Amino acid sequence: MTTSREIRLAARPRGMPQPSDFELAEVELPEPGEGEVLIRNAFVSVDPYMRGRMNDVKSYVPPFQLGEPLTGGAVGQVVASKNPQWPEGTWVVHNLGWREAAVSDGSGLLPVDPSLAPVSTALGVLGMPGLTAYVGLLDIGRPQEGETVFVSGAAGAVGSAAGQIAKLKGCRVIGSAGTQDKVAWVRELGFDEVFDYHETDTREALREGIDVYFDNVGGSTLEAAIGAMRTRGRVVACGAISQYNATELPPGPRNLFLVVTRRLRIEGFIVSDHYDRFPDFLADMGGWVREGKVRYRETIVEGIENTPAAFIGLLQGDNIGKMLVKVGPEP
Amino acid sequence: MTTSREIRLAARPRGMPQPSDFELAEVELPEPGEGEVLIRNAFVSVDPYMRGRMNDVKSYVPPFQLGEPLTGGAVGQVVASKNPQWPEGTWVVHNLGWREAAVSDGSGLLPVDPSLAPVSTALGVLGMPGLTAYVGLLDIGRPQEGETVFVSGAAGAVGSAAGQIAKLKGCRVIGSAGTQDKVAWVRELGFDEVFDYHETDTREALREGIDVYFDNVGGSTLEAAIGAMRTRGRVVACGAISQYNATELPPGPRNLFLVVTRRLRIEGFIVSDHYDRFPDFLADMGGWVREGKVRYRETIVEGIENTPAAFIGLLQGDNIGKMLVKVGPEP
Repeated sequence: MTTSREIRLAARPRGMPQPSDFELAEVELPEPGEGEVLIRNAFVSVDPYMRGRMNDVKSYVPPFQLGEPLTGGAVGQVVASKNPQWPEGTWVVHNLGWREAAVSDGSGLLPVDPSLAPVSTALGVLGMPGLTAYVGLLDIGRPQEGETVFVSGAAGAVGSAAGQIAKLKGCRVIGSAGTQDKVAWVRELGFDEVFDYHETDTREALREGIDVYFDNVGGSTLEAAIGAMRTRGRVVACGAISQYNATELPPGPRNLFLVVTRRLRIEGFIVSDHYDRFPDFLADMGGWVREGKVRYRETIVEGIENTPAAFIGLLQGDNIGKMLVKVGPEP
Repeated sequence: MTTSREIRLAARPRGMPQPSDFELAEVELPEPGEGEVLIRNAFVSVDPYMRGRMNDVKSYVPPFQLGEPLTGGAVGQVVASKNPQWPEGTWVVHNLGWREAAVSDGSGLLPVDPSLAPVSTALGVLGMPGLTAYVGLLDIGRPQEGETVFVSGAAGAVGSAAGQIAKLKGCRVIGSAGTQDKVAWVRELGFDEVFDYHETDTREALREGIDVYFDNVGGSTLEAAIGAMRTRGRVVACGAISQYNATELPPGPRNLFLVVTRRLRIEGFIVSDHYDRFPDFLADMGGWVREGKVRYRETIVEGIENTPAAFIGLLQGDNIGKMLVKVGPEP
């Protein structure tokens, strides 16, 4: 038997989640049965999309269940195996979420090679957030060399990757973020312009026009970006973190009529529809990361018991780059 | 010299245009000079997009100028010619707008064959509104057989054509309109379901879900359609007649976040970007009209002096099918 601690959903948050919406529990895991493996996690991931699953609303993924551990991305090592595909010692990324250890039947595991990059990157720049940036920018936004791309949430795991890919594709890139530290880091990444949206009016920052908007935040930023769109501009609708905790639906952009007159395209996507792009992504992004052309940063919180605080901090914008919780030893 | 009466913009409308925003003037046209033709119009067109040009706002077409005749679609016959390309007797469609007669240098004319269809159709089902329906539905909406298509403004020139094309492509088609007479006609056209949006809540009418929304009206109908969208649904953003007379910008759809979770695409277009599709359109639509597979209707007002009233009536929804003003003899 292995003891593992896990975080369960205790109550459905109203608005910004509170620590009391979560509970820490200790469970005894059985030895893996035939075909199963026991995984000891090094990192669990907190991601903005998880907020939506905490509501009791049918969406593209089913809601989390009360009293159950929260599932989501995690990376760990197989420490006991009765599945020949996943021998003991293998590092894997999986979706069993906010726990120190988990028993898996082997489905939904992906191998991670710890000699190529830190295993934490499998949850960030070389994982789901990186693929989100890659697919969203290249397949949905389809920027052309010389175009101007605006990325909100530019210091986040997705936004920082999207902006750097746009630079590699020969675009002029503008980023917005919410603190001076974030602005400084995004500037280091090579964005052409970066502004703190608390201090600079977004409309003013975009007054010269944009061709692609990679939207991580929604709300008034989306309205400002639509207003700045050039003819045949595109909005990559990736997320709307400004609204995830809204208790009633705020009005949409008042200038949506510009979609007609400027022939705009606003298109949403969910990264899990695009896993067929994972091999291309890993080849490109792995190369860019190795060559230092795409840089990343992580904000790491220690201890499974601090996962809810890390998640709440993420929604409040406390992170620079990928927000992770370290729950066990790394390679 | 030829006497012609024309309608000029006397004042920029605030909200719904008033008769006093227009003035009737009489002008003497010179004989056509070298390379020029004199055209006597049979019909002039009133179209919703013209409302936007009455504002002093830069858009995809420049604003109308105060004191100048309003330009726009018209069909007429060359009655004097010093341009061998356009001999006397030729019927043409042109963009010189709200006047009984006009002198043209021959640019921007398209020939019309009066033996194929009534010349008025060159302003409707076989002209700009028909092409708008064709390109918007097929190239932007891209409906698949078996999908459900919702068309607002379904009794209008564009909406009635879009819905019938969707039926020909094997779709289930729902239409909305604003009077019982319109509903009855749209039902005759073969739409699967038609409702009067004054009497039926649009959300209720769409409760079984839609795949494509051909949007002619914007506003709350757009919000309801987004709410009814199935995964990977598409909004063809063609027009927003509900908002053309708004004096301040109303809030946009509150449920725009569904664009992400349902992977929606909202895409605007302007028909003049798609004139390369005119030959395909004429071949397809000409055939469908001849075979009775696409039907059309016209609401015809008599006399150039009644053009402003026809235009105001159009914005108020007085028309069934294409709204036209008859200003001279037909073939």
